Amino acid sequence: MSFRDDTAVEDDGNGLYRGQVVDGWDVVGNANGGYLLALAARAMTEASGRPYPMVLNAHYLSPGRPGPVTIAPETVKAGRRFTTVRARMSSAEKPMLELLGSFADIASLEGPQRVDAEPPELPAPEQCLRIEPSDQGFPPAMLGKIDLRMHPEDAGFYEGKPSGQPLFRGWFRLPDRERIDPFALLLAVDAFPPTIFNANLALGWCPTLELTTHLRGIPEPGWLRCRFSTRFISGGLLEEDGEIWDESGRLVAQSRQLALTPKA
Amino acid sequence: MSFRDDTAVEDDGNGLYRGQVVDGWDVVGNANGGYLLALAARAMTEASGRPYPMVLNAHYLSPGRPGPVTIAPETVKAGRRFTTVRARMSSAEKPMLELLGSFADIASLEGPQRVDAEPPELPAPEQCLRIEPSDQGFPPAMLGKIDLRMHPEDAGFYEGKPSGQPLFRGWFRLPDRERIDPFALLLAVDAFPPTIFNANLALGWCPTLELTTHLRGIPEPGWLRCRFSTRFISGGLLEEDGEIWDESGRLVAQSRQLALTPKA
Repeated sequence: MSFRDDTAVEDDGNGLYRGQVVDGWDVVGNANGGYLLALAARAMTEASGRPYPMVLNAHYLSPGRPGPVTIAPETVKAGRRFTTVRARMSSAEKPMLELLGSFADIASLEGPQRVDAEPPELPAPEQCLRIEPSDQGFPPAMLGKIDLRMHPEDAGFYEGKPSGQPLFRGWFRLPDRERIDPFALLLAVDAFPPTIFNANLALGWCPTLELTTHLRGIPEPGWLRCRFSTRFISGGLLEEDGEIWDESGRLVAQSRQLALTPKA
Repeated sequence: MSFRDDTAVEDDGNGLYRGQVVDGWDVVGNANGGYLLALAARAMTEASGRPYPMVLNAHYLSPGRPGPVTIAPETVKAGRRFTTVRARMSSAEKPMLELLGSFADIASLEGPQRVDAEPPELPAPEQCLRIEPSDQGFPPAMLGKIDLRMHPEDAGFYEGKPSGQPLFRGWFRLPDRERIDPFALLLAVDAFPPTIFNANLALGWCPTLELTTHLRGIPEPGWLRCRFSTRFISGGLLEEDGEIWDESGRLVAQSRQLALTPKA
């Protein structure tokens, strides 16, 4: 099964979309947040009548378990260039995600260019550590659904040696060279381990409360260069900033999430 | 009139809140985005039954003009520690803001502390440039409602000499030492000029599409140290990242907005 198949949604004819949280996308039993986001975003984007999710906010209400879901989008405003849509994604039992986004043909927007940043420097993918799922539950099952190559300097924590820096850098692609569409970028922004796992703090469940993604470009085919970092761990909360660059060296997505710090 | 008065809202008894976009908060005719955000957030916070907006997303749908507004909050989920609320703020004519937030007593959350950042270095407020409104429309009227002191290195653009860096740093407080509550932080995150005004690019209306704020602490009384910067100006869009620190040197709010670049 491909990512595209695993995030397929279907309009029931009344504007309610049906999809499936497919088995195998979980992190110790709960579906990955980026996977859930991609599923909901497909329905919202189709409902918007625009090709891409330009900016998407998601609040995580309850863990995702395998099984059927419904996505109920409501168009807030359809403007000349942008359409704003809100939605709720629910399992049979309860709401899982509440979302708000604005959708547009971002490729048609134009303006000046100035980028004061560089893609993360990474050794070649074959020099990085491919992270594969373990029967013991960690690395989690979802690593079997993606191809993630971690920067060796950030990979020590898999052997109990965190780098000390709340930072993960690496390459991302889908298996079998499946094309990275903008929904796969939504998957990528939550595909790396919580940055705090490299920070010599307590390891544990680090639930995402909210995740916002800006889509800044349509990726060229190939690997994505990814960087996730955290500067503010305080008051029970942390932010995690993500940057996703495509093979042509262009920033294609920027993300920030607010998460709860693990309990000691 | 105080900021508190100018952002007061009243429940009509049926869960619909009424407020006023008060004259004088505008930027060349349109009400400031942070002011509108604070107005909506007061209603959402009251509806949530929690003391603070922990994370708040706002999509800007149409410009705000002086006059009555209604805010219609809907509780999405009331959990043990967090309550998620969506809302629409509308004038008599049309929707202005669509919002989604999670609300909590953030002062009651606990966890480890690690901050890999410093507050911006600023000369003392009296060594900075106080930005005051001009009858010509720029600096805009809303500068009469706040006390903003710009870092001299970033203030040249007011005399036609942009620094060349998409960066603004300065002090913020409310007039008459009015207490900075978390809603005033929502005002502060959009109170500085668009960063792009310092970047040697075309000057012009730079509309906010979306603005997300994380509240990370309850500010001590006194001045706020503020820093707004942009790294990615591309494809007709730019992000603007804000950090607000209180007088005790603690980060109290982090913001990011997605805006349209001005037309040349």
